[in-house]
Amino acid sequence: MATDRRFGAGIWHFATYVDRYATDGYGEPRSILDAIELAGRVRDLSVVDLNYPFFGGSFTDAQIEDALRRNALDVIGITPEIYTRTFAKGAFTNPDPGVRRRAHELVTEAAGVARRFGAEYVKLWPGQDGWDYPFQVDHRALWKASLDGVGALAAENPDLRFVIEYKPREPRVHMSFDSVARTLLGIERIGLPNVGILLDFGHSLFGGESPADAAQLAIDHGRLFGIDVNDNLRGWDDDMIAGSIHPIEIFEFFHTLERNAWDGVWQLDQFPFREDSVAAADAAIDFLKLVDTALGRLDVEALATAQAEHDSIRALRLAQSALYGSRWAPGQG
Amino acid sequence: MATDRRFGAGIWHFATYVDRYATDGYGEPRSILDAIELAGRVRDLSVVDLNYPFFGGSFTDAQIEDALRRNALDVIGITPEIYTRTFAKGAFTNPDPGVRRRAHELVTEAAGVARRFGAEYVKLWPGQDGWDYPFQVDHRALWKASLDGVGALAAENPDLRFVIEYKPREPRVHMSFDSVARTLLGIERIGLPNVGILLDFGHSLFGGESPADAAQLAIDHGRLFGIDVNDNLRGWDDDMIAGSIHPIEIFEFFHTLERNAWDGVWQLDQFPFREDSVAAADAAIDFLKLVDTALGRLDVEALATAQAEHDSIRALRLAQSALYGSRWAPGQG
Amino acid sequence: MATDRRFGAGIWHFATYVDRYATDGYGEPRSILDAIELAGRVRDLSVVDLNYPFFGGSFTDAQIEDALRRNALDVIGITPEIYTRTFAKGAFTNPDPGVRRRAHELVTEAAGVARRFGAEYVKLWPGQDGWDYPFQVDHRALWKASLDGVGALAAENPDLRFVIEYKPREPRVHMSFDSVARTLLGIERIGLPNVGILLDFGHSLFGGESPADAAQLAIDHGRLFGIDVNDNLRGWDDDMIAGSIHPIEIFEFFHTLERNAWDGVWQLDQFPFREDSVAAADAAIDFLKLVDTALGRLDVEALATAQAEHDSIRALRLAQSALYGSRWAPGQG
Amino acid sequence: MATDRRFGAGIWHFATYVDRYATDGYGEPRSILDAIELAGRVRDLSVVDLNYPFFGGSFTDAQIEDALRRNALDVIGITPEIYTRTFAKGAFTNPDPGVRRRAHELVTEAAGVARRFGAEYVKLWPGQDGWDYPFQVDHRALWKASLDGVGALAAENPDLRFVIEYKPREPRVHMSFDSVARTLLGIERIGLPNVGILLDFGHSLFGGESPADAAQLAIDHGRLFGIDVNDNLRGWDDDMIAGSIHPIEIFEFFHTLERNAWDGVWQLDQFPFREDSVAAADAAIDFLKLVDTALGRLDVEALATAQAEHDSIRALRLAQSALYGSRWAPGQG
Repeated sequence: MATDRRFGAGIWHFATYVDRYATDGYGEPRSILDAIELAGRVRDLSVVDLNYPFFGGSFTDAQIEDALRRNALDVIGITPEIYTRTFAKGAFTNPDPGVRRRAHELVTEAAGVARRFGAEYVKLWPGQDGWDYPFQVDHRALWKASLDGVGALAAENPDLRFVIEYKPREPRVHMSFDSVARTLLGIERIGLPNVGILLDFGHSLFGGESPADAAQLAIDHGRLFGIDVNDNLRGWDDDMIAGSIHPIEIFEFFHTLERNAWDGVWQLDQFPFREDSVAAADAAIDFLKLVDTALGRLDVEALATAQAEHDSIRALRLAQSALYGSRWAPGQG
Repeated sequence: MATDRRFGAGIWHFATYVDRYATDGYGEPRSILDAIELAGRVRDLSVVDLNYPFFGGSFTDAQIEDALRRNALDVIGITPEIYTRTFAKGAFTNPDPGVRRRAHELVTEAAGVARRFGAEYVKLWPGQDGWDYPFQVDHRALWKASLDGVGALAAENPDLRFVIEYKPREPRVHMSFDSVARTLLGIERIGLPNVGILLDFGHSLFGGESPADAAQLAIDHGRLFGIDVNDNLRGWDDDMIAGSIHPIEIFEFFHTLERNAWDGVWQLDQFPFREDSVAAADAAIDFLKLVDTALGRLDVEALATAQAEHDSIRALRLAQSALYGSRWAPGQG
Repeated sequence: MATDRRFGAGIWHFATYVDRYATDGYGEPRSILDAIELAGRVRDLSVVDLNYPFFGGSFTDAQIEDALRRNALDVIGITPEIYTRTFAKGAFTNPDPGVRRRAHELVTEAAGVARRFGAEYVKLWPGQDGWDYPFQVDHRALWKASLDGVGALAAENPDLRFVIEYKPREPRVHMSFDSVARTLLGIERIGLPNVGILLDFGHSLFGGESPADAAQLAIDHGRLFGIDVNDNLRGWDDDMIAGSIHPIEIFEFFHTLERNAWDGVWQLDQFPFREDSVAAADAAIDFLKLVDTALGRLDVEALATAQAEHDSIRALRLAQSALYGSRWAPGQG
Repeated sequence: MATDRRFGAGIWHFATYVDRYATDGYGEPRSILDAIELAGRVRDLSVVDLNYPFFGGSFTDAQIEDALRRNALDVIGITPEIYTRTFAKGAFTNPDPGVRRRAHELVTEAAGVARRFGAEYVKLWPGQDGWDYPFQVDHRALWKASLDGVGALAAENPDLRFVIEYKPREPRVHMSFDSVARTLLGIERIGLPNVGILLDFGHSLFGGESPADAAQLAIDHGRLFGIDVNDNLRGWDDDMIAGSIHPIEIFEFFHTLERNAWDGVWQLDQFPFREDSVAAADAAIDFLKLVDTALGRLDVEALATAQAEHDSIRALRLAQSALYGSRWAPGQG
């Protein structure tokens, strides 16, 4: 295992949740300060991504800073909440120009917070930007508004990085930034160096992508600015514990990052609705460490040979040998 | 159109919603009284299904009754909320026997309310009963608890009907009552006459069923006690406006009910997150009336002949002729 | 209906099929000449897309030309069969350089046939280019090979257009050109004016896209060179009769083409495994004519207003009014 | 690992395949004798399931027997090919009574072959029984025909077992026996002791089931007569190498069999289109042996405790400890 591996998590990992059925929530509400304390109890967590505004109360930056320091946590990103009630019909693409302006202002504020906390990026997840019904929107106008909204922010804040986290859908039936390729196409059109992708492993699976392929594509376009992981059943963004369903594909994902010398933080984006959030993070990180060890054992030269021939069985056996280790009978790898 | 056609809706159609992102909701909170007033504004609504406990405040049965009378609405069903925080890990299958008892009590109370309002049934939607992860549950024990829970209620309340509304998933990653066949299998095992199915068109589509086939199967087992409709993209329970995506399959669904002389209420179960809820109900009912008219125009004899030969094209043309009417060039049907 | 509307079909629409179960085929084998005769019996077919090599025998170009003339059919495209046994592990991305060369040669031959028949384009559907297993391929190398293969052909044949027909998967578990955005991204990288997209409505639905949005995006990049339609259940490329499942979304698709003054051929790509292929084509075209009439009735000004507000219900009602016509009660649209 | 574990495979695992694109096949055609020779080269294969009629030539039972003996293979099942051209519109549900009769005759012949080879069961996979389009069939009649067809065979051959292998779809858009619950419901209706289920792990995943839950349900109904495994991406019956995608769920599946003392053969149903079929079987069986070893290491008592509390994280860690073994840091399981 790489000795300098850093793990992170979105701070919402340690919040409680509501959904359309359990409207009273899956637990007592927590403030961002509560969440930071919980994050601090995770064995190997170094960095967090913070929602902005800070949830659960009125907190000063200093209060947040104190809590972070006390828990030995750095800030990797700031995520402005451009998907709450105000933005129900979209942030950058809202039909109301006043709401679009409000989105711009909120992200601009978040940019200030990012500077203050030394974050690597402002994360844009425009989950309400999209559509629900056929005929509902003018698709050209909607896409243009998406790019204009992000472009303006990136242009006004050249000292900061903006990362777009794409997802096929939810809460909208269809999200504008729905895939790695669509997002890259948009970023190329925006044409600014400080806009990139935050690739969520689960969103990629959900969208029918191979996350390893998606990561490679984003890297080849020079736009892979961040990643996070979790797991799901490919039909929804379940945000389950990383490695619980797709250990081999997550291993391929990190192998792809490794072979490209991508050295960012290994982050979690999990929603443990009914689980203890500290235990859920620990379980995921323990699995990620196994992956890290497996990376060290992977015979990359033999793998390159197998891949040059598209030899699926040989490649699979090499991956399995690295992952299952001594449990995997010698000589069979 | 059948002159005595009655339309209904779940009262939650007229609530506002929250989800895990828009935690501040898609609009100002509404009480059940507000929702009843809105339901009253829908042009052709006769009956509603009421959540219990009544949401948004402390209301007496009399207050609800007044509001219903004022809006000329009858009650078709009572839906106990066995999927809120208390029941986050299951109602009938909760690992905690105290919570299972609480679920039993809540449904028992709801049964009293059903009697009071002259409802046709108590609706059981055990949305939190199921599992999320591999290895999480003992599947035999879980299924047994599902059947025991429903069975006890049905046995104790032989004067009332209990309907189970199945769904593949959400909020759990997998729901125990996940399909029409599984639910029928369980109902047969329970072995009581007063347990049936509430078939949600969208849940059926989402589960990969043909809703028409599912309805026929439930009817052939004598268990189709209720239905509701909406629409979705087959990958999630989107609860969109009925007919907005699958007009032909919804037509086949109602044709199946008609050919079996099933004469219950045509109900809506829609979640208009970002739409005016009265307009959403009106739009759906207008489409259902078109379906009703089309039923009258469908050449059922020719259809029976086509179906006897599994002649998809002839059958499709007959359905299209009935649905598109004069717009469909004569002689081509 | 536009008086000059032209309808087309892939000639394989009139072939018989095999699959992995019915290895003896869904009917007697047919030659391309047989298929052309059947195509000639479709009431309103003007153009066809021809597979190359010509299937079912050894035919000269002149024989094909005769058959086409006899049936009053023009050729819109030539589809080289770069997905048969030789290319089982890929055409442009095959690990064997000899096979890649063979693919290049076959497409080059097809380019000659396209010139000879005055076709608008050579269609590239690299259905075997992709992967099946995690770790099987080097994703960077695979994508580069995809672009190099297409780019070389386009550079060598500047007088011809090449269209890429993307699809998420099948026969590979994942296809390299899997979506509209990925394909556009690749085309931009190739950087030649004569490479575009053939957008298959069903592939787009299957990939979780809105076909209307996909068409708009391709148009905005100046790359929508062709389209074809069919229908499916969104989970697979079922190639069913157009309009049989998603009439509203296909209407939105053609509305999008219309509003952009895109005036290409309305083509069919259906696989009537168990149906009479002439009847299947007639049924689809009859529906497309209904769509065409509905386009004429659509209140585009009111729709533009509704879309400016993202007003889903108003937009849906306008579409329904145009599609269902007089069956839809006046005043409700 | 249980020393008496027996592994098997469908003999088609060693055939070559065609599909609708590679109509010339993914390799040279092979006869069933060729396939048996290949099966004989797999390190740990004991039994096979044979298609009937024997493919690739005219072979006597004696020839088959010789080949099997030479390769030390027993016959576990006989699979009559009730899904070829003759049966394109259904075997038991075909609209043509003559074809239904032909299906009955073919299965009856297969029953004789099963007796001759001492097979455990005749396997019914009615892949063409179902429908493609809305309105195409009378669902009651179709389901009745499905049950009548199977029931007649079971009644006439009380000395033999018939297993139904359900699948959601393919080649039909919807298959009659689509899920474990639907199949059990039908079997209960047939009411004969010699009809059971052949549970295909991949079909179950594809249908949105938990294969472990499906197995438990079939066992609890006394109907789990056989199983086979493979893997897929949950959206199609990919028939990939077992364990290549879902190692944890396959482990849960075998754990469920083990806890129920289900001691049948661990069979493969893979379609290695582009892979060496012997290598594909060896790779799968090597993984199944790892699973078998992991079963021995699984702390079933601790798991029972975790499951009694629906404790997903504890249960997952126990499963991971057993599967990843010493690679998983001690003390964390």
